[in-house]
Order: sequence, then C-alpha cells, then structure tokens
Amino acid sequence: MSAGRRGRRARADASAPARKVDYRNLRNPFPPMAAFSDDRIEALHEASLTVLEELGIKVLHPGARDLYRQGGARIDGEMAYIGRDMVAAALASAPRSFAMKGAVPERDLTMELGRMMFQPGAGCPHATDLTRGRRPGTIADFRELVQITQSFDVLHMVPPLVEAQDVPMHLRHMAMTEVELTQSDKVPFLYARGTPQVMDGFEMIRDFRGLSDAEFRAQSWCYTIINTNSPRTIDLPMAQGLIDFARHGQLAIITPFTLMGAMAPVTVAGAMTLSHAEALAAITLSQLAQPGAPVCYGTFTSNVDMKSGAPAFGTPEHFTASLVAGQLARRIGLPWRCAGGSAANINDAQAANETQFGLWGCLLAGATVTIHSAGWLEGGLTVSYEKIITDLEVLQMVAELCAGTPSTDADIALDALREVPPMGHFFGAAHTMARYQTQFYEPLVGDWSNFGAWTERGAVDANHRATGIWRGIVDNFEPPPMDPDRVAALQDFIARRTAEGGAPPES
Amino acid sequence: MSAGRRGRRARADASAPARKVDYRNLRNPFPPMAAFSDDRIEALHEASLTVLEELGIKVLHPGARDLYRQGGARIDGEMAYIGRDMVAAALASAPRSFAMKGAVPERDLTMELGRMMFQPGAGCPHATDLTRGRRPGTIADFRELVQITQSFDVLHMVPPLVEAQDVPMHLRHMAMTEVELTQSDKVPFLYARGTPQVMDGFEMIRDFRGLSDAEFRAQSWCYTIINTNSPRTIDLPMAQGLIDFARHGQLAIITPFTLMGAMAPVTVAGAMTLSHAEALAAITLSQLAQPGAPVCYGTFTSNVDMKSGAPAFGTPEHFTASLVAGQLARRIGLPWRCAGGSAANINDAQAANETQFGLWGCLLAGATVTIHSAGWLEGGLTVSYEKIITDLEVLQMVAELCAGTPSTDADIALDALREVPPMGHFFGAAHTMARYQTQFYEPLVGDWSNFGAWTERGAVDANHRATGIWRGIVDNFEPPPMDPDRVAALQDFIARRTAEGGAPPES
Repeated sequence: MSAGRRGRRARADASAPARKVDYRNLRNPFPPMAAFSDDRIEALHEASLTVLEELGIKVLHPGARDLYRQGGARIDGEMAYIGRDMVAAALASAPRSFAMKGAVPERDLTMELGRMMFQPGAGCPHATDLTRGRRPGTIADFRELVQITQSFDVLHMVPPLVEAQDVPMHLRHMAMTEVELTQSDKVPFLYARGTPQVMDGFEMIRDFRGLSDAEFRAQSWCYTIINTNSPRTIDLPMAQGLIDFARHGQLAIITPFTLMGAMAPVTVAGAMTLSHAEALAAITLSQLAQPGAPVCYGTFTSNVDMKSGAPAFGTPEHFTASLVAGQLARRIGLPWRCAGGSAANINDAQAANETQFGLWGCLLAGATVTIHSAGWLEGGLTVSYEKIITDLEVLQMVAELCAGTPSTDADIALDALREVPPMGHFFGAAHTMARYQTQFYEPLVGDWSNFGAWTERGAVDANHRATGIWRGIVDNFEPPPMDPDRVAALQDFIARRTAEGGAPPES
Repeated sequence: MSAGRRGRRARADASAPARKVDYRNLRNPFPPMAAFSDDRIEALHEASLTVLEELGIKVLHPGARDLYRQGGARIDGEMAYIGRDMVAAALASAPRSFAMKGAVPERDLTMELGRMMFQPGAGCPHATDLTRGRRPGTIADFRELVQITQSFDVLHMVPPLVEAQDVPMHLRHMAMTEVELTQSDKVPFLYARGTPQVMDGFEMIRDFRGLSDAEFRAQSWCYTIINTNSPRTIDLPMAQGLIDFARHGQLAIITPFTLMGAMAPVTVAGAMTLSHAEALAAITLSQLAQPGAPVCYGTFTSNVDMKSGAPAFGTPEHFTASLVAGQLARRIGLPWRCAGGSAANINDAQAANETQFGLWGCLLAGATVTIHSAGWLEGGLTVSYEKIITDLEVLQMVAELCAGTPSTDADIALDALREVPPMGHFFGAAHTMARYQTQFYEPLVGDWSNFGAWTERGAVDANHRATGIWRGIVDNFEPPPMDPDRVAALQDFIARRTAEGGAPPES
C-alpha cells in the first residue's frame, strides 16, 4: 500500500489507471558534490588517524579495551591508542555491500554506496500533533507513528520515532519491538542499551521471522544506532552494542553526533576530523569483535548557536559537513548514514526549510541512509505527526526524480506539436489523452486549488490538511499479513520475560 | 547594507566582529545535473529546429515578420518558418557574457553561464501580508517590496514584484520605474508593453544614471522579460519589446511559459521541445533586430493538475524541466533564466517546500538567474511579504555555500583536538574563541531557541517573525545615495509625460 495510491484513491474515480512509481529501491540520481579537494580529504583522513594513534579514544568498556589490545592497540588506563594498520584492517574486512532483511523480500534493502534510503525522525522524547498537543511520548504514540511509517514506501526502515515513556525502562525494549514487528514489515530498530535488552530483541525478531539462530546470524534483520560520546569517548552500552550486533551479524549504524563549537571543533574540517576518527574507532571495534560484521559509516555534524549553545540543523555548516562526510564515505567505500532535521519549535516555514535544506545536503553528499528526514522538530526533542506528512511530500518528490524521465521521440511529441495550432492548447491532444492520468506526481498534502476555492473550503493550511491525512492512516490502518501463531508467541515471550523482571538498561 | 549585518545588529553587541560574506557575486557551486543523455538533448534540439522550420511560429507583429523574412524565413500569412541556418547565425551573434549595470559598480552583474543570481517573485496582481491581508497590488506595496528587495544582497535584480493596480495603465510604467530608481541601486526592470512605454523607461533610466544616449546603448542598464504566447506564438508587444530592447542594447530575458498538459505537451520532453523552439525563435528575432544584442535564454516549464487544470510549481516535473533547460542552455552557451515558485495559498509548509524544491531544480540546472525565488504564492497571483523573508533564509544559506569552507591544517584543528579531553567541550578552546563570532551563518528569521524559551516569548511562528523583519526594513528604510537634482528631473519628466497623456500600453 503506497501513499501515492492512497492519495489517488481519495481524488480520482476508482476506474482511473494508477501511476505506479517504485519508491522501495532507490538509487541516488544526484551528482555528488565535494566540499573539499581530494587532497584535503586525504589530509583530514590522515589527521583522524593521527587522533586515533596519538591522542587516543577513551573506551569505558573493559571488554572493548581487551579487543582493541588484542588487535594491537596500546591501552593506557581507559585510553586506547589505535594504530593506522588496525584501522586499515577494519576497513578491509567491513563489507561494502550487504542485505538488510524485512519481513518479506519486497522490504529487503541493499546497503551500499549509491543506494538511497530514508527514515523519519527518531529518538524524540516528545510527540506532537495538532489535535492532542505536545506531550511525552507513549507506546500508543509509537504505535501510530510506526503505522504512518509503514504506510509510505519512501520510508525504508522503522526507527524509534518516539520514546515510549509510559513503559518502564526494563520493559520498554520489548514493547517497542512488539510494535515494530506487528505494525510493520520493514526492517526494525533495536536500542543498544545493554546485552540483556539486545538479546531479548534479537530473540523476538528471530522467532517472529521464523528463523533458526544460524539463519538469523547469517543476515541483518535489524539495526541499531551507535552514537559515540564526542569528543573521543565510546561508552559502555555503545561498546557493548557494537560487540553484540557484530557477533550476531546485525547492523550497527555508527554515528558520532558532533556539534561544531560544542563537543567538536568550531570548524567543519575540525568537527569532521573528530567525527571521522570516532567512526573509524567504532568500525574498528566492530570488526575486531567479528571481522566482516555489517556496519554503516555515519555522521551527524551540525553547528550550535554560539550565543546560546542551542543546536541548529539545516544550516550551511550542516550541509557542508554532510558533503565532507560523503567524501570520506566514498574514500573508505562503506555505506553511510547522514541526517536532516530542524531546530524549529513548530511545523512552520522555518521547519520545512531547514529540513529540506539539510535533506539536500544529504542527497548531494550521496548518503545511503538519511535519518530524521521527516517529522523532526526542536532538534530532535519532538516528533510531529503533521511534519512527517509535509516532509514526506518532499521525500516522495525526490523519489520521483529517481525514476527518471523518458525522452524518446514519442515523448518529444512532434506529432502533438503538429496537432495543436498556435495559441491552442494540449488538453485534448491525443498525446495528452494517452498519458494524462499517469504522467504527473500527485501531491500527498499539497493543495493546488486557487485562492477562491481554497478559501471556500475553509482556508485549511498544509499542517491541518496533514492532520486529516495521518488521522486517516491511523484510523484505517491494517497491519501487514502475519502468522497469528507468531504474534501469540511474541506476546507469550513478553509475558514470560516481564514475569522474570524484564531487562533494565545497562550503562 | 546586508541583511546579515542587520540580523547581527539586532542580536549581538555592537562591538562584535561581523561575519562578512559577499552575496553579490555568486558562482554556482553545485554540480550540474542532467535529466536526459547528451544524445537525447541533441534530438530535442533538433526537434525544436524542425518545429521552427516545418511547423512555424505565428508572429503577430508585421515588422517582426519583415525582420524574419529579411533574415531568410519563409512567411505565409502570419506564420514564419525559420530555418536552422538562421537560428545558428543568431546563436553565433548572441553574446555569451555581458555586463548588467547597476547604479554603482558594486551592483553590476555579469551575465554568463556559471554565475548565479536571484530575484524575488514577480508579476503578481496581488500582495499579501499578515497585518493588512491579501489585496490588489498598489504602488505603495511596490515601493515597500522594492525596499525589501534592496535590503538583501542575495537579491540581485529588481523585478516587478507586484502590479501597481491603483495607477492607471498609461502612467503605471513611469510610477514603477520611479520607485525602482529611487528606492534601489540594483538593475531595474521595464515591462515591454509597447514602444512608447519602453522609450519612457529608457529615457528615465538613461537620464537618472547620467548617461549619454551612446553610453546607455553601449551596455545593459535594465532588462525586460519576454514571455512567448505558447504554443508557437509571438504577440505584438513581445515582438516589439524584443526589437526595442535589442536596438537599444538592453537585456531581454526570453521565457516561454509552458505548462505541461495545457499550453505545452504533457511530457517534459515535449514541453521542453516547444519551449526551446520558442526561445530560439525569440533569440533569432532579437539578433535579427540587432546582431550582438544581449539576451538571456530561458524557460518556465511546470505542469498542471490534470483534473483541474490548475498550475503547479515545485513539482518533480518542474524540477526535471529545469534540468533539461539547463542542458539546452549549456548546449547553446547562453546565460539563462529559470524559475521557482509555489501554488500554495499561504506561506505554510507546502509553500516553503515547493519553493525550495523548485529552487534546487534551478540550482542543479545551473540557472544564471532564478526568478520567483522568494515570496511567490498562488502560482504567481500573490506576492507575500512574509514569504519573501522566509524564502530569503534559504537563498542566503545557498549563497553561504558559494563562499566555500576552508580546510587548512588550522581548520582541521589537531591542536584543538589535543587541547580538549575526552567528553570535554570545545566552547572555551582557543581554536573556538578565535573563530566563534564569525564562523557560522546567523539566521535571518530562523529561531533556534528551545521550546520553553520560545513559548515564553509568545510561541511566534516564522511567518509572524517575518512580519517583524519586513516591517523593520520598511519603517527604517534609507534609500541608497542619489543626486537630488536627478530625482527632481525624474519627477519633472513624469509630470511632463503625464500632462502629455502618458503612454497607454500597446497590444
């Protein structure tokens, strides 16, 4: 069920042929843009290796320090000094292309440079919509947001859109995983908050997908996000997550979150040197834990307001940092994640402009996965239902560009040009009649009616139209087909583990 | 007076060093994107030549038909059949680079491929703002909108933002030109609404700039927009405008306005074949009137809603048509104009997203001049004061990307990375302190404060913040320095021409 089809159904009669554009398997159609010259990218890469070798990384996890030591690093207290050779070995063993498995083959993804995937905004403590206002996120919110994510093919993976704050921490991982598995057939996310929670998640996904342990480990059925603690620190749950996901063959997306001027140098070049060093350290740990383990390189580098310290997104500096990250990702050859986002407090013109500007940075940087590409407000403190919808319009238009535009002689249309006289019109031309129902993208939330008609219909802005759209999705949501026995088994698992006391996060 | 400086003045103390980025002379930093292969662009170009040669162009202006005939065209009634050789000769004589002259050298522009200029929305019958509502445009509105345009360096030329509907048509050209000359030092626009109005405009500009007739004719001191009447028609005032501007050495920006499915074929390839043919016909007329006359190639091609016929902007089809136009412009080597815009009825997320999406089409197409890049609502029926401000944020961020980002060893900042311990912060690092006041773009209308602070300050959205910004500009506007004698002479000219009956438009 694609959103495109949904939009059409509401607008056109049922007999009209549907425009079908595949949003599921996108390849980036944009020319990659460079911010720095190749030799300066090399200098930055070398500087990152110097950071790892000479300044070192603080590693809070003793087991991770052991892995680094066994790999050849010098360990001094909590500091690990990681040699260039170790990084080179890790980059050689990290796979450049691998599959991510959904519930059905149509939801499988290929992680490699050149592919293009989107996720809605993630990790937000709050949710907001125009009918219920801004509130701490709940498991009910998360369920609705996963339903919305499931309903649009242009969103390729399910992230933790909102924290289910009404579920205690020792049970939350199971509640959120249950929602992901029962409301979506897309690749699910797991938090890396300690081994017990991660193992619960792996078991839930493995059994729900009907896999043996070997089958589960042989491919990536879920993913996590590993944020280093910038500057130069890998904390306990992050290190444990890297190790657990690597040893079980599941994807770790590695993302230093480096705000220029705050936890990173004030320059793009300096912030990216730090980000790159931290990402290389994490990739190295992953490959030490399990050579060949699937990893995504990543960055999330933007700037702060130097007067207030407030983070900013969709800025020229954010855009440029994304371009540099893309150059570094191509330098090391790995699939990678980048991020959009907005610091606006409501879904206004600022919010739209920042998110789209940040998105174009990711697109021209050649990001494999763009996170926070829809719905992210307040620099990630709130996910907006309406903003997911209005941002989805942009993502769908980007996806339309991937399909390419035909330019055959029939498209050049000399016959139609011959048929229509000067100052005539093409509405009734045979060339038009044969194509008009499927030629153009139909907007999801855009309203192209004139001012009079729009005013008569109540002068409803895009935000309020978006409310109607997500409400319609949630009210009429039908989960993808699934085996009721597996749903029952999933719920039995949760009941049993709940009775056993769940699994508190570890840190 | 740059907007950046204005923003800073309001925010930081007066002693703070100012970030200075030149927004006046921009070169496009984005890699050009192709929609069609080079051989299909060649096929499209050839099809356009076939349209001109075999299907012909309707030319309503007898003098223009004479020029085409003298150039070798076959004339049959009002139809002109224009040979490939004539087009080739015109493309050979049209200049690939030329200057546009402002009131001062700092406002001069260079028209050539690779440059990047922006104009706010133009040609709107209505104006709207949040305090006074939507109304038919007046000369007072035009004056304010020119003041806003003058105040931002990233807007490079003054367009006719709104029709001054309160001034009778036989006097309007003088009233609008007076505003352009007295409120701005940027390159002004003249409508091509018949020779008498155009000659009034030329005389006003020539004398106000203190030029001899030869000096005026030797360079372009103003510009007009020539929209062909698609399909395949050049009407009376447009043809006369092409001839008058060419013979006086002033710039004609040639822009077929071709909506796919309405006045053009429903396909991008077909619509661009028509647009290209019409542009080539107009360029040919210009060069027949005066070989070497300055012209800009151009297009404005988007699609309509095939159910209502309503025009749409900022769509994937609009984006793709812009890319094709860019490929054709590079094929013929001329500077060219493209356009953004929005069909939204208010400055909401739809409006922001459509305008920015259309802008990225122009940027990746390598447009020399992007028109309607700020403030254009309702597909051009209304110009919004607030939307000019919120769109300007995007244009300024694009202009920031032109400046490039340094990547020296000092920017890579190994010393700062050495200075700050793991999990420390860079706020107080020497590297940060030396740079923090000038490192980042400061937003014009973006508000990065957190939800609590933003709520306490009244939860003002970007639109309402924009009201305060344009109101501040208009209330405190100081025109650029100018000779009071020339202002008096300008007013004398208008008084005399008014007494003589002005100049009705011709069509």
